[in-house]
Amino acid sequence: MNPQTSVLLTDLYQLTMLQGYYEQGMEETAVFEFFVRKMPPERNFLMVAGLDQALTYIESLRFTSAELEWISQCGRFRDDFVDYLSGLRFTGDVHAIPEGRVVFPNEPLLRVTAPLPQAQLMESRLVNLLHFQTMIASKAARCVLAAPGKVLVDFGMRRAHGAEAALLAARASYLAGLTGTATVLAAPLFGIPIFGTMAHAFVQAHGNESDAFKHFAQAQPGNVVLLIDTYDTERAARKVVELAPRLAQEGITVKGVRLDSGDLAGHARKVRQILDEGGCSGITIFASSSVDEYVLQDLAGAGAPIDGFGIGTHLDTSADRPYLDCAYKLQEYGGRARRKRSEGKATWPGRKQVYRYVDSDGYLSHDLLTLETDVRDGQPLLHPVMRAGRRIDPPETLTQSRTRAAEDLARLPPGLRDLRQRQDYPVEVSDQLRALTAELDAKNDES
Amino acid sequence: MNPQTSVLLTDLYQLTMLQGYYEQGMEETAVFEFFVRKMPPERNFLMVAGLDQALTYIESLRFTSAELEWISQCGRFRDDFVDYLSGLRFTGDVHAIPEGRVVFPNEPLLRVTAPLPQAQLMESRLVNLLHFQTMIASKAARCVLAAPGKVLVDFGMRRAHGAEAALLAARASYLAGLTGTATVLAAPLFGIPIFGTMAHAFVQAHGNESDAFKHFAQAQPGNVVLLIDTYDTERAARKVVELAPRLAQEGITVKGVRLDSGDLAGHARKVRQILDEGGCSGITIFASSSVDEYVLQDLAGAGAPIDGFGIGTHLDTSADRPYLDCAYKLQEYGGRARRKRSEGKATWPGRKQVYRYVDSDGYLSHDLLTLETDVRDGQPLLHPVMRAGRRIDPPETLTQSRTRAAEDLARLPPGLRDLRQRQDYPVEVSDQLRALTAELDAKNDES
Repeated sequence: MNPQTSVLLTDLYQLTMLQGYYEQGMEETAVFEFFVRKMPPERNFLMVAGLDQALTYIESLRFTSAELEWISQCGRFRDDFVDYLSGLRFTGDVHAIPEGRVVFPNEPLLRVTAPLPQAQLMESRLVNLLHFQTMIASKAARCVLAAPGKVLVDFGMRRAHGAEAALLAARASYLAGLTGTATVLAAPLFGIPIFGTMAHAFVQAHGNESDAFKHFAQAQPGNVVLLIDTYDTERAARKVVELAPRLAQEGITVKGVRLDSGDLAGHARKVRQILDEGGCSGITIFASSSVDEYVLQDLAGAGAPIDGFGIGTHLDTSADRPYLDCAYKLQEYGGRARRKRSEGKATWPGRKQVYRYVDSDGYLSHDLLTLETDVRDGQPLLHPVMRAGRRIDPPETLTQSRTRAAEDLARLPPGLRDLRQRQDYPVEVSDQLRALTAELDAKNDES
Repeated sequence: MNPQTSVLLTDLYQLTMLQGYYEQGMEETAVFEFFVRKMPPERNFLMVAGLDQALTYIESLRFTSAELEWISQCGRFRDDFVDYLSGLRFTGDVHAIPEGRVVFPNEPLLRVTAPLPQAQLMESRLVNLLHFQTMIASKAARCVLAAPGKVLVDFGMRRAHGAEAALLAARASYLAGLTGTATVLAAPLFGIPIFGTMAHAFVQAHGNESDAFKHFAQAQPGNVVLLIDTYDTERAARKVVELAPRLAQEGITVKGVRLDSGDLAGHARKVRQILDEGGCSGITIFASSSVDEYVLQDLAGAGAPIDGFGIGTHLDTSADRPYLDCAYKLQEYGGRARRKRSEGKATWPGRKQVYRYVDSDGYLSHDLLTLETDVRDGQPLLHPVMRAGRRIDPPETLTQSRTRAAEDLARLPPGLRDLRQRQDYPVEVSDQLRALTAELDAKNDES
């Protein structure tokens, strides 16, 4: 069983509920929507990501013989139900908001319309895929806003939560506007530009720091970025100044130096001065070490002469808010709208559409959440992406999603761009949707 | 290329450094150690987990032909170096602290002794594997301390950061003492007990809540836990009281009810009373919804009549501290100890051992960090686990690690068990280790 694609990568209750649906013959059309319930206090907007992986998952949803064998032997399920599972495929429709789009709470990012068991089964993994990349793209977009014009590289693989998190964080953050990633596998898998410098171990393994610099430059003449904080940052910068002209004679250009500890702004200023006075004004300064959007903003505010950043742990774990309050909920079954009313977790029922309105300057003005049948003149955000179990169009390229992300970030009004001051974006709820909600509540009170 | 096992799941600089080592013929024995630099403010102890996955990774480290082809075509590496990579295997030794053991900052959890390029190459993925599970086991152990005697189930798959995070969180939290997980695939992969109830969609899809309860019970007669908060928790509890005797006539026992929203203590008290007064004192109460160790402790303090908990997002993302400040650092090369001195990131050099001392009551008293050659009479925590590229013993079972975890938790003194009050555990540094450090600093000052 493949740990990443197995249909058993789900919560047990999906299977137990499916047995219930099967025994009751509950196979009518269900509509589920995935949405974020509430904006985290640390975010003013979210950015959709993960749709491509979600659709791949939905399209290929099936039980392998090894999985069926395990289900049949685990002692919880009946044989006829296991037979039924063996034929289960996704035959429904999917609507979604495309990747790179800026979104807000209660807006369905994805809607599944399918026979109830199919739509139910995919809940856990679908949430797992959409939640993570949307969270990371939203965090990465804040870094992009904090450091316009800077080279920003995802450095987070080692502290990402596992292999898939590392790869999908590289994808989601590139989509949101980062320059690239250090994670090699993201290049062959997603075509993302990769970047790398050197580690302290390379310097330490050499007896002498200057030798380490020289050997690294000779081994990677096209990509010479030297790590200068292993022992003493400013002293190492002076070694670079001595070394650079000698390497130039070999035809090797020192492109940059990297700082990875201490007061980044202070070191950057001193190092910039040492490099400039040593005739190395072409050498750029790259910094890493606990960088996030707040650090980026502070360094920009301090005018620190840093040209690029490695953003690691804080990005790949979305450290200040490592989860979103999101859900995939049943909104309609057998043609009738449904509503969950649990305290603090109530949902807007029915099949919904989101319309977006911009002001005269092109900035986002407000969104309208309404029923799909209530057609309006704004920009509809949800589009059909799968029909009868198949994608309607081939997958979008990452460049297309990235372009959309850049366009949407440019349309954010100043209040929403603020990284520290919370501002709510108006998501209006239509009268039609409110009326349906009231109607369902009245009915449930009688049930 | 397999997204979970590919050797390209690494940082680019590992490959660029390897080319440097290759060109300089730097193949002498290197010693790297993985350790946590600083205790997060929210933790008093850490628990080792992830060693089994780390050793599997090390043992199977190699470049496939597809990976070599990609490296050769990416334009950054020379052909002879690619040839060299094709033959690269791990031939070294590994020492480690076993899984389930409680550990503290600066203690090497794992030590790799191997030719420099081999030991260097594995850094990124090794950190990725050991960091995540150690973080999760440490979080889970706190939940276990907060709720002694309760059934605790990992519910976090959907908001874990990707597939691997979900599976390894199930593993690490079971190792630390949870009762099991809701993630199905953790059963066939790791033999972890799985648990499941029902979701709101099951109730909503039925026109009537009582019908939903009945149908679920009939479909899963051996595992009837009914979710009662979809519309009105107390009213649903009364429906359970009505239904239970009728199901009993069919031979079906209602095992429990689940609360998933609102004031869990308040609802639990009311529901307990409704169940008891209705002759259903055998029905247990299970609760979920934003549960973590703090909530568990508060509910225990309030005497909430809850028998078991689903712990989801906060566990699988280690939400209050989603990363550890950890590193894998070169401590010796070519027989000479090495030390990184970067500000705030300096390391203790050399091959090290940790000795543990307990007090007369069997509680942890203090640890001693010293050089491997400085043999002491305490309990040594690091043991040889791989020799010449192969595991010395077959992998430990999860039950063995889990037993060790329980034993270590029982040995924690009261101060370290405190979930809200920070307490430092004494990790002493031997005179020998301090002397070596001073000696290296003096030498580096001259270099």
